[in-house]
Amino acid sequence: MSATSSEQTLATAVLSGDRRALARLITRVENRAPDALEALAILHSHTGRAAIVGVTGAPGTGKSSLVNALALALRRRGQTVGIVAVDPTSPFSGGAVLGDRVRMVDLAGDSGVFIRSMASRGSLGGLAATTGDVVRVLDAAGFAVILVETVGAGQSEVEIARMAHTTVVVDAPGLGDEVQAIKAGILEIADILVVNKADRPGAQNTVRTLRAMLELGHRLRTGGHHGVRAVAAAVQAEPVFDSWTVPVIETVATEHKGIDELLAALDRHQAHLRETGEITDRERQRVEAELLARLREALLARLLAERPPEALEKTIQRILRRELDPNTAVRALLEDDLSSPDGKG
Amino acid sequence: MSATSSEQTLATAVLSGDRRALARLITRVENRAPDALEALAILHSHTGRAAIVGVTGAPGTGKSSLVNALALALRRRGQTVGIVAVDPTSPFSGGAVLGDRVRMVDLAGDSGVFIRSMASRGSLGGLAATTGDVVRVLDAAGFAVILVETVGAGQSEVEIARMAHTTVVVDAPGLGDEVQAIKAGILEIADILVVNKADRPGAQNTVRTLRAMLELGHRLRTGGHHGVRAVAAAVQAEPVFDSWTVPVIETVATEHKGIDELLAALDRHQAHLRETGEITDRERQRVEAELLARLREALLARLLAERPPEALEKTIQRILRRELDPNTAVRALLEDDLSSPDGKG
Repeated sequence: MSATSSEQTLATAVLSGDRRALARLITRVENRAPDALEALAILHSHTGRAAIVGVTGAPGTGKSSLVNALALALRRRGQTVGIVAVDPTSPFSGGAVLGDRVRMVDLAGDSGVFIRSMASRGSLGGLAATTGDVVRVLDAAGFAVILVETVGAGQSEVEIARMAHTTVVVDAPGLGDEVQAIKAGILEIADILVVNKADRPGAQNTVRTLRAMLELGHRLRTGGHHGVRAVAAAVQAEPVFDSWTVPVIETVATEHKGIDELLAALDRHQAHLRETGEITDRERQRVEAELLARLREALLARLLAERPPEALEKTIQRILRRELDPNTAVRALLEDDLSSPDGKG
Repeated sequence: MSATSSEQTLATAVLSGDRRALARLITRVENRAPDALEALAILHSHTGRAAIVGVTGAPGTGKSSLVNALALALRRRGQTVGIVAVDPTSPFSGGAVLGDRVRMVDLAGDSGVFIRSMASRGSLGGLAATTGDVVRVLDAAGFAVILVETVGAGQSEVEIARMAHTTVVVDAPGLGDEVQAIKAGILEIADILVVNKADRPGAQNTVRTLRAMLELGHRLRTGGHHGVRAVAAAVQAEPVFDSWTVPVIETVATEHKGIDELLAALDRHQAHLRETGEITDRERQRVEAELLARLREALLARLLAERPPEALEKTIQRILRRELDPNTAVRALLEDDLSSPDGKG
């Protein structure tokens, strides 16, 4: 890897704690600038020290306030904090900008905190890769804890949560039945559950429901009558470390209530990861998921670059005329890719 | 394309309206069975007649009830309806199963309705491709209207909404501030806005907010001071057909209120698509998005199949030892792919 002086300068400045260099590099990473990728290659060997915490959950649970309160508590005990707020919902920047403004009130002007909101540009795979790179930059820059917050509720959370050592799933009372149904999927990725807005009516009910769902999930995993195939698939996909019991913690983030308990649970989970060696497995999964996401994008980009721009369009038009179906088209494009790099369309 | 008798039989049975064959084929499509792909190739030439309507929005808005009410109204005027409920949130099947049960009460036993819930298996890209195929099967089977409902709130909606001719975004009063922030992203894909649960307090406020956001979005698109780059990107990505004004329709789905108005808006939008020729553009975008998603998955699958299973693991381990960063790793894997099919990495 031969680095030009400009890349080395930027990487060195980031490593030395230069905040403006950090902001500049992150912007270049978001824009996928080639020199940013070189700087990332330099920074990579300096990563691996930060505790990466994912905070996710359904809309309306108050995730941003919780991340805010958590960051303040971490600062109070002297740890530096990087916050990456990922908003995969907005092709524009509306959501991300809004999130920034909410947070700025409490954390602005503290050099021990660095906040970056990211909106979606292009595919979800691309966003996951960029988020991974931004986390890597903050890790190399020496931030002790990196909070990755995802707004939305869906596959995006699951993908982005895979980048974290500890995943905090936030819930709140009174979000309605549909949200309850959705939670089943998100619960599976939780290391710590938070019931935020715990001063609202129905909070105890939410806590009870979550505990029951955790209990059910545990029974399913350890072999019940239902979902044997689904469980087998889940077991195959990732090893189960059964010694960690997911705690349910009640918070009122806007009043900073329950935040110390949450912090203690985070500490316990980080210790658990190290003691059991699970941290190695998580890191491995994280790297694999990231690598596959990048490969998908890079392979497609290469295929499209290798053939004349009209080749793809011709295929699309043939599908539209019902002469060709998409599956056969993909097979043809791939075979074409092997036999001739020019493409036959 | 040489089709064996079993594929032809299944395809022919689906075309002749055999409901059990339809259910069987869709299951095979979900499992990506090779014979299902052959059947899809046969069916493709019979597609293109259905009106494909996407129904999406934040959790808690009552999308399932709305789809239910819409299906009943379509049936009442004699149209057949296919419903594909996509739940990208659950790696298990919890959410999807729940959705089925809710719907079955009203629509069970009606042979003019076919309902299929789909949970996520593997990546979002894979889910989008499978959903596309299931829609195609229902289209070929002759269903007049296909309702694609997505549960969740995020990029998944945007991806899956691209498959629809008309996208209905559902909102409801009282979902909280965070949901409001999220909506900005989802609003951009709406052809029709629905405020469901319109009998609840705050409904008029939600209607007003949505109208204001639509107005702001319109001003941004037609060139304001803010977000010039974002707007330029949006304009580049897809042509703007300005003659369609997004209507805001109030419904109480559980009481079947406002459903006729929604149906009328759907008819108007379908007519608009045909009159302006926008339908051609939407079909094109739909095919392109689907083709690219499939290509990504297929290219990755091929790359991984081409090299020994330990090649990827070796790369992962090198990244974990900080000897290699992910971007450089991807470049190496791609170069390797060109120079030698066995892999060195």
